[in-house]
Amino acid sequence: MPQRPDINRRILLAARPLGEPTVQDFCLDEAAVPVPAEGQVLLRTLYLSLDPYMRNLMDEAGTRYAPAVPLKQPMVGATVSRVVASRHPGFGVGEVVLASAGWQDYALSDGAGLTPLGGMTQPSLALGGLGMTAFTAYVGLLDIGQPRLGETVVVAAATGAVGSVVGQIARLQGARVVGIAGGAQKCRHAVGQLGFDTCLDHRAPALDERLAAACPDGIDVYFENVGGAVFDAVLPLLNDGARVPVCGVIAHYNDATPPPGPDRLPRMMSTLLQRRIRMQGFIILDHYADRFEAFHRDMARWLAEGRIVLREDRIDGLEHAPAAFVGLLQGRNFGKLVVRVADD
Amino acid sequence: MPQRPDINRRILLAARPLGEPTVQDFCLDEAAVPVPAEGQVLLRTLYLSLDPYMRNLMDEAGTRYAPAVPLKQPMVGATVSRVVASRHPGFGVGEVVLASAGWQDYALSDGAGLTPLGGMTQPSLALGGLGMTAFTAYVGLLDIGQPRLGETVVVAAATGAVGSVVGQIARLQGARVVGIAGGAQKCRHAVGQLGFDTCLDHRAPALDERLAAACPDGIDVYFENVGGAVFDAVLPLLNDGARVPVCGVIAHYNDATPPPGPDRLPRMMSTLLQRRIRMQGFIILDHYADRFEAFHRDMARWLAEGRIVLREDRIDGLEHAPAAFVGLLQGRNFGKLVVRVADD
Repeated sequence: MPQRPDINRRILLAARPLGEPTVQDFCLDEAAVPVPAEGQVLLRTLYLSLDPYMRNLMDEAGTRYAPAVPLKQPMVGATVSRVVASRHPGFGVGEVVLASAGWQDYALSDGAGLTPLGGMTQPSLALGGLGMTAFTAYVGLLDIGQPRLGETVVVAAATGAVGSVVGQIARLQGARVVGIAGGAQKCRHAVGQLGFDTCLDHRAPALDERLAAACPDGIDVYFENVGGAVFDAVLPLLNDGARVPVCGVIAHYNDATPPPGPDRLPRMMSTLLQRRIRMQGFIILDHYADRFEAFHRDMARWLAEGRIVLREDRIDGLEHAPAAFVGLLQGRNFGKLVVRVADD
Repeated sequence: MPQRPDINRRILLAARPLGEPTVQDFCLDEAAVPVPAEGQVLLRTLYLSLDPYMRNLMDEAGTRYAPAVPLKQPMVGATVSRVVASRHPGFGVGEVVLASAGWQDYALSDGAGLTPLGGMTQPSLALGGLGMTAFTAYVGLLDIGQPRLGETVVVAAATGAVGSVVGQIARLQGARVVGIAGGAQKCRHAVGQLGFDTCLDHRAPALDERLAAACPDGIDVYFENVGGAVFDAVLPLLNDGARVPVCGVIAHYNDATPPPGPDRLPRMMSTLLQRRIRMQGFIILDHYADRFEAFHRDMARWLAEGRIVLREDRIDGLEHAPAAFVGLLQGRNFGKLVVRVADD
């Protein structure tokens, strides 16, 4: 569907998925472009961020930190947007801001939560490498994982938006970094471009044995962002005093009911106990006030110095967001997934 | 079997239990009383401590912090013992010490690991209220659980050696304390004698609903020492930022293989994540150097001031240790379980 300046294309939640979402759970809707009232701005979406947490907002229960998306309403999400009309004294036409405009071409805002992006040369970075996903990596790894020189850090989804940054920051701390990714190409990227010490393909057989061989000194930090079989391979290798920041469990986001047995919880608890492991969940929204400034300063420096490399997986066209999102949950993205909705 | 001064009765591990241990997994053996060599003392066991961790040492795998008890060898365990012969310059005959003499009347020691108990009026307290079990409660609750004024603390095995102290220390911190125990008598004791705000009988139906009703503001600290169904009732009530010190999972010590499904791990991980929960295993052996002195000072004061009440479940006769231990794993003890092996 071509884009027209007088139409606001919106991707609505059409149905609550049972298990894995499909493109049929979304629908493309057209509405009039809204008109800002006094105190409002009209935002044009330039880039839309697609992130695994959105899967949870498709379920009726929503999450502890954000409510469910109502049926027949636009999917929510962070955007880089341009102010195209303004009746707000704080924002001028043409200004580019970080917003939460959702999966649509246009949105109104009263200015709350908008962050001006100034003259950023690559504004989509505000959604990834200088934004939420890299900030998630920074806080989870440094504040909870606390890797020390020479320790072994394992991170799954190693070329994803979060995992790729976790591994690179861990290397900067002097840790040994073992990645896990889906497919040989991603593994090569993790080692060759991101500087991981090694990276294992979770689609190849015998992940357990290969991970054990790759971690001869055990695992000191496991950055949990997937769950499932990777967690099972990691658990027996965790060292005494290991730290497990829990950032996501993408392998389970589609579970409609608890999966069949055996019950893996008792073994996990026994391991946690005997090895004095600290496991801690975190939601990045909690940490902006305290830690975003430090993150942004460090990350901007690392990027400028070429010490951290980012890879963006950019999709063109809002109408392709549903398929791209379905692919994200299947691990088909390669880097931070963003949808280019309009020219920046 | 009556006791004779020239015989060392020893309780040996006869078989490695499959699942729940029975008294047939132990056997009573008689040996000559050993004779100390130069540099050794001969210890007479006065009190033997029985603790759930011993179950793990009956399995061939042992634990991360202590090896398995070999078959046909005496069960290990902490004791209060009297020096009855000494060829060690540091210990005189008649001195009472904290030792690890195991399930037997007599043992030799080279003095390593012996702690003189001076003129303690109730030396068996060195095994419980002034010893390992209360120290476990102190470290787990204060250092990991970190209850704050007005928060809700839930502790299972509420009248046991650890749980009873957890709850009382939590009350001293100004927390609201909800206990869970097996049977109405224990629940009455927890409220009436130990000062818990309330205590629920886990043998009565609908624990989930009763726990939810007893925790209208949710749960901020869950001191995990049982696992199983209690954990399932606690999980949905944990608040954002809750802390879960993991001290033991007695409900699972008898598991020979992972229990059947459904698999409870994914739900646990999702809850941990969404509610930013910190879960941390600990082994009390790690903390003596740093924290025992503070514990001992605080606990001695609380006991002297009557602010903490201890209950000892005292069994008479070494020969009854196996049955008492089997009962401990079934929750039949009422207070810290000690075996009086000889007059103090």
